[in-house]
Amino acid sequence: MAPFHLWLTLLLLGSVCASAVHPRKLKRFGGVRRFTATSEPSSDLPPEYEIHYYTQTLDHFNYYPDSYATFQHRYILNYKYWGGANTSSPIFVYTGEEVDVTYDVETFIIDLAARFKGLLLYIEHRYYGESMPFGSEEQAFQNASTLGYLSSEQALADYAQVIVDVKKNLSAENCPAIAVGASYGGMLASWFRLKYPHIVIGALASSSPILYFDDITPQNGYHVVVSKDFRDTSESCYNTIKQSWSEIDRIAAEPNGLTTLSNKFNVCSPLNTTQELKDYLEIMYISAAQYDNPPNYPVESTCSGIDGAPEGTDILGRIAAGLANRFRGFVSCNNVFTFEISNKSAWDWQTCTQIVMPIGYGYNETMFQSEPFDIKNYTKDCLDVFGIVPRPHWMTTEFGGHDIKTVLGKFASNIIFSNGLRDPYSIGGVLEDISDSVVAVYTEHGAHCLDIYPPAPDDPVWLIAQRVKEIKIISAWIAEYYAKLATK
Amino acid sequence: MAPFHLWLTLLLLGSVCASAVHPRKLKRFGGVRRFTATSEPSSDLPPEYEIHYYTQTLDHFNYYPDSYATFQHRYILNYKYWGGANTSSPIFVYTGEEVDVTYDVETFIIDLAARFKGLLLYIEHRYYGESMPFGSEEQAFQNASTLGYLSSEQALADYAQVIVDVKKNLSAENCPAIAVGASYGGMLASWFRLKYPHIVIGALASSSPILYFDDITPQNGYHVVVSKDFRDTSESCYNTIKQSWSEIDRIAAEPNGLTTLSNKFNVCSPLNTTQELKDYLEIMYISAAQYDNPPNYPVESTCSGIDGAPEGTDILGRIAAGLANRFRGFVSCNNVFTFEISNKSAWDWQTCTQIVMPIGYGYNETMFQSEPFDIKNYTKDCLDVFGIVPRPHWMTTEFGGHDIKTVLGKFASNIIFSNGLRDPYSIGGVLEDISDSVVAVYTEHGAHCLDIYPPAPDDPVWLIAQRVKEIKIISAWIAEYYAKLATK
Repeated sequence: MAPFHLWLTLLLLGSVCASAVHPRKLKRFGGVRRFTATSEPSSDLPPEYEIHYYTQTLDHFNYYPDSYATFQHRYILNYKYWGGANTSSPIFVYTGEEVDVTYDVETFIIDLAARFKGLLLYIEHRYYGESMPFGSEEQAFQNASTLGYLSSEQALADYAQVIVDVKKNLSAENCPAIAVGASYGGMLASWFRLKYPHIVIGALASSSPILYFDDITPQNGYHVVVSKDFRDTSESCYNTIKQSWSEIDRIAAEPNGLTTLSNKFNVCSPLNTTQELKDYLEIMYISAAQYDNPPNYPVESTCSGIDGAPEGTDILGRIAAGLANRFRGFVSCNNVFTFEISNKSAWDWQTCTQIVMPIGYGYNETMFQSEPFDIKNYTKDCLDVFGIVPRPHWMTTEFGGHDIKTVLGKFASNIIFSNGLRDPYSIGGVLEDISDSVVAVYTEHGAHCLDIYPPAPDDPVWLIAQRVKEIKIISAWIAEYYAKLATK
Repeated sequence: MAPFHLWLTLLLLGSVCASAVHPRKLKRFGGVRRFTATSEPSSDLPPEYEIHYYTQTLDHFNYYPDSYATFQHRYILNYKYWGGANTSSPIFVYTGEEVDVTYDVETFIIDLAARFKGLLLYIEHRYYGESMPFGSEEQAFQNASTLGYLSSEQALADYAQVIVDVKKNLSAENCPAIAVGASYGGMLASWFRLKYPHIVIGALASSSPILYFDDITPQNGYHVVVSKDFRDTSESCYNTIKQSWSEIDRIAAEPNGLTTLSNKFNVCSPLNTTQELKDYLEIMYISAAQYDNPPNYPVESTCSGIDGAPEGTDILGRIAAGLANRFRGFVSCNNVFTFEISNKSAWDWQTCTQIVMPIGYGYNETMFQSEPFDIKNYTKDCLDVFGIVPRPHWMTTEFGGHDIKTVLGKFASNIIFSNGLRDPYSIGGVLEDISDSVVAVYTEHGAHCLDIYPPAPDDPVWLIAQRVKEIKIISAWIAEYYAKLATK
């Protein structure tokens, strides 16, 4: 397997938290593999997972005859733990994110189902996996007209239709449904509770930066957290990284500078530009921070390499040693790649339309060089690739976010916003209780979606405690629901 | 003016409560004129009403390039009472219903604005009045493809965009907005509060049958209430009406029966069918009940005519006398008309797509002959006229309604569902408090949207009390909002 594929595999493994930072640069991150879900879409799921297809409405909100077009929408049921409709046992609904839904079947949601005798219902997000409008991926991605039906509102309405249909088919109308999602899927879970409270009684939204839109969260927040993660781990590591950028520039300006850099970083193919190297390094740092997961803790292992290089090693030598230490045994050379926005990527489409997270940072605000968020360039890229102009303010108009504590203080109920503060996305998450039942459950040391990973024997106590707290809260929702049901 | 026009004028006067019962039969009802709003769309509003146009997104939820098409969306501002942005004075948002918005400027909302130093913002519903996508009514109504963007979800998103824009333009971000609407517009007001709680702090939804969808409300509810209204007014009147249908059938079966009936009912043009007469009479009864408003109380005046006919008058003679008494001085003959579903009616489009209220009644359930709701015929009509198949279950999936007390008991806040129990639509309204702040405020004697009509000197005490109660509740919302604002 070529190093490139190794890289991609590595990056995609933790796909429960597929997610995007720079749409220009990054499509999706994955951390260290910690659970048994396959790294490829799989039709070889364990036999308790039943794959179903719902004939889904392509366009829920318009009524021209074309909109009555439908597509086969994939969802998965697992009855293994379910107490059944007779006992009004709950339904745990995984609100699929930007990935093939079969990636995500084995997550913490199974523990929830086991504990509460829950039915497992995983719903794929339209335009991912097999849930392709227009019959095939090729057709769906043909152009902006066929991609147009890819939006969060349509996906939420899809979920509503599927849940209502599944409940009806199982005569499970009295069974309380609870949405569970991670990263973008967690945003969808919380929005689903907000917009469809009649369909789910609550939502567990893990690592969902619902406030990273418009001007709610400081643009540099993401990289500020990455920098803090490194600094908290090692001041010298942080300083080395901070100094490395100008060092790269200095060497690049020398004769044969790119060759020198190529050798220093043991790249698989010679560098074409310094920017390529910088982008690559940035991806390495931010992915380490976002998925700074036990037991390998990539920030720690990167810094160990940087700090532990033999005395006298120069700055870039230390950086290279950091990378080598992080990926020891996985890769033989650094395959420097830059993700480009692609008209074959559904997530890129979403970031070019409504999921506009204004992530950028100025000079000296982080351990990175300056790279302000530039909506003009962003728009230009989207126009070039999709012929579409992003709507950067729409998400806050549609889903809110500004002044969320006042707005939802007396509105809404039963939402857990869980986060790990080492996750740079946590800065755009809900980190404060909004009310008695719209609550923030975070850990100081956790990373992106860590609570949604399946529990492992060597989990740290703070992670175990986070999940216990979530279970306790969900248990109260269900108990309250049953109490109401009993009075009917 | 021909009698026909007189009729229409009469029916349209109370357009604050434009609304539909049988999409097959009725487009819009109006009661007795009680306020000074014009009965025609007007550009001659008093000078304090400023007409504005917002460049509105045609399709909020899809992103194919075409969806970036825009249209000029009309809204009206009235600053007369406003305390200004400096004092964070409120904004009262009239969520326009299925009618030209200029009809509705002079309603109870003015009293609210005057009392709370509120800005008045009236937003027209897309595809009504001047808010026509595709440049003109002719273009907008061309076919199902151009009409397709007419949906409640799109209208709510329109309102969100306009409110956000108006607030921004006036630096009024801190001004609490409150949605006010009546009939379908009240449904929109309550849904707006449910789906966009970050944009309005509360909603006054008058006579909004949000539960008259799917299987939530008994189908015969509307006509059961009409029958009750008549029976409560006069048992003999009710009995006469109940007997009249078979009497019509009996006479129609005689030689020259239709001519006999035409004469008996003093019709302007000879009847073509008995059904025509029956439909007309039904419209007269249900409109009397729906708009059984002071000071004329059409149910009472109809029954006075029926009961007060000279002794010995036969059943149909009494019915004719009832009509004559109700409309004395307005019409010289009965212009029997039946509304037909029309591809030029935006409301008909809405009833043929998502606003499917299953209103019908079986044998001996009401004072009417049997006319069950028949989704097959309903669908056939919609297919014939628009080429579209209704989605009768969508509204409850999108907006809820089933088991509303449990669902919203701990979710949502600050909604007033106001009703008058003589209004047959009230049977599909929320008539029970859902929580401390999602409340039902109804009057025994009130009719459709009566509280939203502008207060008049001769208003009965119970109506005055209803409005006082609403003001008190809204006052608490605003006070609570200011208290929170002060702590920021």
